[in-house]
Formats: sequence, C-alpha cells, structure tokens
Amino acid sequence: MASETPDPKLLFESFSKIVGENDVSVDEAELFAYSLDASNHQGEPWAVVRPENRNEIVDILKLCNARAMPVNPRGAGTSLAGQALTLNGGIILDIRKMNKIKEINIGDREVIVEPGVVYSKLNEELAKYGYCFPPEPGSAMSCTVGGMVGNNASGIRAVKYGVTRDFVLGLEVVLANGDVIRTGSRSIKTSSGYDLTRLFVGSEGTLGVFTEIILKILPMPKYAQVLIAVFKSVVDAGKVASQVINSGITPSAMELVDQFCTAAMNPALSKPLPLGEASLMIETDGTMNETVKAEMEKVKKVCEDNGAVEVRVSKDPEERLQMWRARDSVYTRLTQLRGESLVIHGVSDTGVPISKVPEALRELKEVAKKAGAPLMIMFGHIGDGNVHIGLSVDPAKELEKGDKIARVIAETVINKYKGTITAEHGAGLSKAVFMPLEHGKALEYMRKIKGVFDPKGIMNPGVMGLGDVPNTTFPSLPKKVGGR
Amino acid sequence: MASETPDPKLLFESFSKIVGENDVSVDEAELFAYSLDASNHQGEPWAVVRPENRNEIVDILKLCNARAMPVNPRGAGTSLAGQALTLNGGIILDIRKMNKIKEINIGDREVIVEPGVVYSKLNEELAKYGYCFPPEPGSAMSCTVGGMVGNNASGIRAVKYGVTRDFVLGLEVVLANGDVIRTGSRSIKTSSGYDLTRLFVGSEGTLGVFTEIILKILPMPKYAQVLIAVFKSVVDAGKVASQVINSGITPSAMELVDQFCTAAMNPALSKPLPLGEASLMIETDGTMNETVKAEMEKVKKVCEDNGAVEVRVSKDPEERLQMWRARDSVYTRLTQLRGESLVIHGVSDTGVPISKVPEALRELKEVAKKAGAPLMIMFGHIGDGNVHIGLSVDPAKELEKGDKIARVIAETVINKYKGTITAEHGAGLSKAVFMPLEHGKALEYMRKIKGVFDPKGIMNPGVMGLGDVPNTTFPSLPKKVGGR
Repeated sequence: MASETPDPKLLFESFSKIVGENDVSVDEAELFAYSLDASNHQGEPWAVVRPENRNEIVDILKLCNARAMPVNPRGAGTSLAGQALTLNGGIILDIRKMNKIKEINIGDREVIVEPGVVYSKLNEELAKYGYCFPPEPGSAMSCTVGGMVGNNASGIRAVKYGVTRDFVLGLEVVLANGDVIRTGSRSIKTSSGYDLTRLFVGSEGTLGVFTEIILKILPMPKYAQVLIAVFKSVVDAGKVASQVINSGITPSAMELVDQFCTAAMNPALSKPLPLGEASLMIETDGTMNETVKAEMEKVKKVCEDNGAVEVRVSKDPEERLQMWRARDSVYTRLTQLRGESLVIHGVSDTGVPISKVPEALRELKEVAKKAGAPLMIMFGHIGDGNVHIGLSVDPAKELEKGDKIARVIAETVINKYKGTITAEHGAGLSKAVFMPLEHGKALEYMRKIKGVFDPKGIMNPGVMGLGDVPNTTFPSLPKKVGGR
Repeated sequence: MASETPDPKLLFESFSKIVGENDVSVDEAELFAYSLDASNHQGEPWAVVRPENRNEIVDILKLCNARAMPVNPRGAGTSLAGQALTLNGGIILDIRKMNKIKEINIGDREVIVEPGVVYSKLNEELAKYGYCFPPEPGSAMSCTVGGMVGNNASGIRAVKYGVTRDFVLGLEVVLANGDVIRTGSRSIKTSSGYDLTRLFVGSEGTLGVFTEIILKILPMPKYAQVLIAVFKSVVDAGKVASQVINSGITPSAMELVDQFCTAAMNPALSKPLPLGEASLMIETDGTMNETVKAEMEKVKKVCEDNGAVEVRVSKDPEERLQMWRARDSVYTRLTQLRGESLVIHGVSDTGVPISKVPEALRELKEVAKKAGAPLMIMFGHIGDGNVHIGLSVDPAKELEKGDKIARVIAETVINKYKGTITAEHGAGLSKAVFMPLEHGKALEYMRKIKGVFDPKGIMNPGVMGLGDVPNTTFPSLPKKVGGR
C-alpha cells in the first residue's frame, strides 16, 4: 500500500483525464471538509473525485488499483463510525453526482436507482404513487441510498419493516480491478448461486463501488398512531414490550428511552411527561384505520395493566409528529445539558436479544459507571434489541478512560448477551477494535473474502478490522480535539 | 479430486473410528437409497456417514479433506434439483441424527436448532407457544431445517412472510478443513462485518456443514381465509394480482394456476370449478378476524370487478384446508393424466418480476411449445414472481429435446425478463448448466469464494456450476430411466 502522499498536481492531472477538471479536487479547504463525516474521527484524503457514471468509476478504480492507492466510496458522509473518511490518505470517491432514479416500477414493486440518490428524495418520488422504501435511518433527510446499502442502515421502523438488507434485490458493482459484476435478480425471490447481493450490503465500501441498486418497495401505510408510556421501572417497560409482541401485534416502532432522555424530550412536548426509570414509545400503523386504532387500544391496555405512570396516545397526525420530533431531539438536548459535544463512542450501537433489553440497559449503565463513565444516556429499539448508548467522553482528554468504558460494554454485550457491537451503524473505524472479540475465527474468513474482491486492499482500508486491528475505538482522532 | 472408488472396507473402518460402526454404511442397498433425492437425478455415494455431534463432523471433514474425498451434507433428501446426491461418488453426510431443538426462546423470538430437525416437527413445538417458523416449503412434512437453510427454501407464504434467508440469525458451521466458525448474532439486528450468515444460506452444501442454526420466529397468524377465482384470461388474473397488491393488502398467499391445474384440482373440491385460462388462489391472514375478513371482502370485489367467472371464498377452516389440498394435489394428478412420471425439469422454478407473471406464463408456454414441449403445466406464486413449470419429458428418451426446451425457457426468463432460473428450489445439478447465463462474471467470484472456504473443492462438487459447467440439465441421469 502506497502510504506516502502522492504529488497533488499529478493526482489532479491523472483524475482530470477521467472525470474532467471540475470533478477532481486537491484543494486544501475541500480536503478538510471531506476529512470528516458524522463520526468523531478525522482523516484527510489526498484527492476527491466525483464520477458521473460507471465507466468513469471503472477507470478510477483501475488507476487506483494499479498504483495501490486507497479509495473510499462516499455518499453524504452521514456515517457515525468513520466509514466515510480515509484513515491514512487516499482518494474519496464521492458518488453524489450519480443520483438518478432510473426506474420506478410500481407493478413490480421495484425501483432502480444510482447510489447517490438521497433517501428522502427517493421516498418523496415514491410517495406520489403511495409507495415507500421503509428503512428510514436517523439521517433520512440527507443520507444516500448507496451509503445505506454500504452500511445496511436502518432505524426505528426496522422492527416491522426490516433493514436495508431486506430490500436490496440486486446490485451492479465495480470491483477494485475494474471488473463490473451484477448480483441478484429482478425477480423478488431468487435462490440462484451465492447471495453476493447481501455480501455487498453492509460491506462499508471494502468490496467495491455500487453503480446501480435495485430495491424492493412497499405500499405506504396509510394510518399510524403513537403512544408514550412512562414507567417507574425499566423492568415494567420490558414486560410491556414482550406482552405487546406476544399478542401478535407488530408495532411499526417500539422505543425504550431512559429517564434522561424522557426529561430531554419534555421541552418539545405540549405538556411535560412525569419521570420514571424508563418510557416506551410504541407506534401502530397499517392500511386500515380501524385495525391501527384497535391495535393501539390493546397496546394502551397492556401499558396500563403493567403500572404505567402515564400513557399518552397521539390524537391526530400532528401530535404524532410532535411526539416523534421530541424523541429525535434527544441527542441535541443532551449536548446542551453538558454544554459540550456529546461524543458518539465506539459502543453507541449495541444489539442484544430483545428480552434482554431492560436488563442490558441497567447492567451496561452499571459496568460503564464502574469504569468511570461521566454521563451516559441510553435508548433502545426494544422491538429489535438495538440499544444506543451515548457517552460524554472527550477523546482528546479522556481517550484511555473512553476505551476502558467501551471495552467493558463491548465485552458484556458480546460475551454475556451474545449480542453485537453494532446493530445498525456499522463497524467503521470506531468498532474495528472489537471485531476479533465479536467474530473470532470468522473474521479470518471475512479477510479472505475481502482478498477475493480486492487483493491489493485498496478499498476503504482500516474499517471493520479487516486489516490491522487498532487497539482503540479512536484509531483516527479528530484534529479539532487534538491529534495523536 | 480422488475420483476412483476407494476400498469400501477401508472407508468403513476409517469412518467407524469417528462415528461408530452403526453409523457408517457401505451396504449396496443403502447406497442405492442414498443415490436418489426428490429430483430426477441419480448418483451413488461410496459411503454414508451419520454423525451425532459437531466434533464428529469436524473429524469427518478433516479426513475427507486430507484425502480429497467429496462430501455431501444431506437432510431429508427432498431437494428437487439434485443437491442431496453425489455426482461422482463421495461421502453422504446424513445430518438427521442431529435433530435436537436446543432452545425455544419466545421472549427473544428465537429458536436454536440442530440442522436435522424436521420442519413440521419444529413448527409443532412452536405452535404450543402460538409461534411459528413460516417459510413452509412443499416438503414441509419431511424436510429438515438444515436442508432449508442450505437451499434457502420457501413456499407459497413467502409473499407475506419471506423466505428461509429472512429468518436465519446465525449459524455454527464446520468448514472443509475442520475449522468451526460462528456467524451472525443473537441480536435480531446486526450490521457487524460481512454477512456470512446469508452467504451460507442457499450455498447448497458447497461451503460447509451447519451444526447449529439460530432462527427468528413469529407469532402464528390466528385467522385466515382463502378464495379461488377463475378468469377467462390470464391477463385479467394478472390485473387482479396487481390491484390487490397496490391496495396495500399483503396476501399470505397469491397463487396463479393455469387451466390444466384448475382441471386437476377439481376432483379434490366439493364442487367443481368452471374452467378459464387461469385461476387465482388468494389468502388473507392475521391476528384479528375482522381485518382478515375485511381484506378478503376487498380482494373478492377486485376479482369481481375484473370479470371473474366464479369467485369462491372458504366458509370455514375446513373448506380452506380442502381448497389448499386441492392445490397441492396438482402434480400428482397431472402425473396420472399422462400415465407416466412427470419429470421436474431444469426449468421448473423460474422467477420473473411480479407484473410480468401473466405475460411470462403465456410466452413461456409458446416458446416451449415451439421447441417441442409435449405437455406443460404452469403455476406461479404471482405475489413474488415465482413461476413453476412442469414438463413431461422422459430424459432417457427425450434428453436432447428436454435440453432444448429448457434452454429457450432459461434464455427467455433471464434475457428478456431479467429474472432467475431458480426462485426457491436452488440450482443443484439441474440448473448448473444455466449459471453462466444468469450470473456472467459474478460466477467467477462465486467460485473464488468457494475456494476461500473449500480450497480442495470437496464440498458437494457439481452443483451450482461452481466447477465444470455441464452442458445438459441432466448431468446425472437416473438409472431407472437409463444411464448415459
């Protein structure tokens, strides 16, 4: 791997021949902008290239492969674990100019898009037909579909509708050597050959660059209602979640938030909630209003039967949106509480078996506190076991402590709960350190698969622990808080 | 690859040391029994071995790998494309003694099973808790869960509940060299590392042997109703299917059958149906009876509005079962019609985009007829684009013609409809010939992935076109109809 910085002028010339001068940049300010994503890592690329079509991508990869230069495919840069920046220099391949919706095929329940299409823009177009692509991540307004596929993104609706992986029917991919392959099929169902499609989904740019994505779409649910219920104890909230699921109702969202989060939501609600150890937000949705309401009635009763301190059901679509906006404001508000940036740490996205969420919420807080966690918030998609942890750690000053906290959390989640260190954000740079712990010998085989598609290791090196495994959750510290 | 038959006595001795004398067989009658599966292929193994646990499997694979002897993991042998028999000798690894249900965890919506558990047996146990593992294939009564995972099996309920792939959360796998790896997580949701789980799902025994399977389970739908509607034209039936789907209703089954099939169903129904070019069977199900009925009313109206000749809705659970039994009897009845074995050919399981099913049904019949197809029936899971074709071809007498018909069908499905040659049965031996056509350059990368897990190529060689691609849909002719 070439690790010395190549001459910027030569880089500019080489890539200009492929994409034209306007779509290459070695400008310092621009390189700085691309040195960040939504994580707390930083790493400056040598150049940024913005291809417009598959053939340009083929030529870019051939060039990079010949010179063993690292390449990082990047969408909107909303990744939370450092997937969208280069660890030790290299080329950022910004795919946002490839943003065409090539085909909306309602009859086949399929769309074909280029990777740079913004998620919310795609759903805007689909809404005209009453359809949607459901796996709405938190960054829905800006993230690209290519980035979602690369990271197997999802959000609160995954409990009912599934994650990005469940919607990708096929891909066109350019590999490191310039080979173009197609995976999957236009048939919704296929059992033909190895499932390369899902091997690429969630591969974080380490196997190739997507140039076309075939997605399954669904009719939009027409009606929805949400409820917030406050409980004295997280165990009561956990019981409610189990009973709702066992009743056969699949909520379109089931969120568990701790007391800190409930308090943080209050300013955004028309009337503040009382506080208890935990609150639940449960949504039902569907194509028939009667069913949605009947299911919500059942859910409400389960909450009341389990000693909810307060149960608030949205009266209309406006109140429903208000309640969700309050939930979305949690991170920002908590930042304000401490008066400084709340670092999304390498353990921010754990997953445990669903019945273990209440227990895990309590235990993880405890072990983290013992390890010296200064302030911690937790909330979880209790319907699918995804527990989010926000740690207020400044990596520049508290790196060692941060790593210690991260390790006890990771060890508890993996060894005790047989869970995962990342349920929806991806491993990126932040969790590369824990990949051996989670995957054991399987990681060796992941590395060999990487070798099949990218023998020189040029595709997004550093993420997922596929190369050298770092010994910290901050292999690439942000400059703004001090380098290493 | 060792292709000469090893001395049976030596084989018996070697494997006896691992699994004991009772669980090895080189007996001629037994080898003959294992030379068949539910396909029309045949291939005799050198020996049959029946391990009881993971450690025995590790030792068996190490031994086979050292001697480069082919190994074929086999469940109930219900595969329809020759996945469960050995093409050129080798060892059948019968996993049916590993049939424990290790954990039923309703709170986590998970079960952990050994691969030899029979599907219907698992669902019997789950039914006690009101839960189920939904992807019911046609062979539900006898197939093993390991076989289902190996072939990504599914059936008529896939349109609503998904295929086996959608339910596998994690695997323990023994690789060719004896390495044991674990994939996936007990967390329902994970985005950690490459998705090895889904790489193994549908790999047809070519990558390793499953020793433990973690499955997601769902609450059983409590109510269901089915309807049969007969249409003058297949195009009308297609319109109904589209309109039902676009209304936001997701039927739990939506089957399109041709006139031959409708006629074949009639003897099993209490009152015969009139005949038209095509009939639809549509089922709604759910946890609330009112919703199921309301949706069925809507479906009925759509049928009537599109000129259905007759619409019959099941009055009670008994009639519903009777109607489904009639549908299941189609294959057997058609065999009786022609008075000889109806061969499931290499094009029996095509998949096309869902809106193209009516058009494909007509066109495939036409091109096949032109190529000389003697008698053909077609039925499809129109909700997910899966079109099943039954061809009455005797491979011993009509091999060339059979291959010609298969090729025109495969070419139409893949080139014109961008579909798949196998939507739910798997490629096996029957469709290995068409893998280059369907996958192009991606097949090269599938072969390289095979090389990562099985460098000596001992795991189920011959299937999926991963080695030498045969030039016929019958690379392994059944002895009973004449060898080659």
